[in-house]
Amino acid sequence: MVLVRHVIGEVLRDIRMSKRQTLRQVAARAAVALGYLSEIERGQKEVSSELLLSIAEALDAPISQIMREVSDRLAIEEGISVPDTVPAELIASVQSHLSVTR
Amino acid sequence: MVLVRHVIGEVLRDIRMSKRQTLRQVAARAAVALGYLSEIERGQKEVSSELLLSIAEALDAPISQIMREVSDRLAIEEGISVPDTVPAELIASVQSHLSVTR
Repeated sequence: MVLVRHVIGEVLRDIRMSKRQTLRQVAARAAVALGYLSEIERGQKEVSSELLLSIAEALDAPISQIMREVSDRLAIEEGISVPDTVPAELIASVQSHLSVTR
Repeated sequence: MVLVRHVIGEVLRDIRMSKRQTLRQVAARAAVALGYLSEIERGQKEVSSELLLSIAEALDAPISQIMREVSDRLAIEEGISVPDTVPAELIASVQSHLSVTR
């Protein structure tokens, strides 16, 4: 069973690490206790919408990007293929055009 | 300021409506009080990860799909273009092939 808070926590931690920020730095900017931010990252605490907004701002990451990453990881866990690259119809369309061209 | 719970509520309601389910039906299947589900749909209550899972199952919608829709709507609110359709390079590639064909 995949819980959204686990995935949100992972994504927040990964974004923070990728920006080479410490828990202390992000907690200070988001005005949240370091221990609480750590619990959120470990998926132990639900994050309120207001706090998620503060953390996203502290990480300089749009919430939509965070939720997109959450969605993508959930899709993998759920075994669902995500149509975020090229629609099959377009590939077929390109291939048919290419074969006409040749 | 866009709050994630508002968008989650909207998405849950839209999915429920699209499946022609009543609040009562979904609340019963998700084992949540009807009034509470209604508050969640109106963005007045944060939804826990466990409850979101129950509601998603009651709606027969994968959580990844729900969060994907949430992410897409947040991106619009945040004015971010979401690369979930066709990459620009591919459009350019198709256009160049089309112009070759003509």
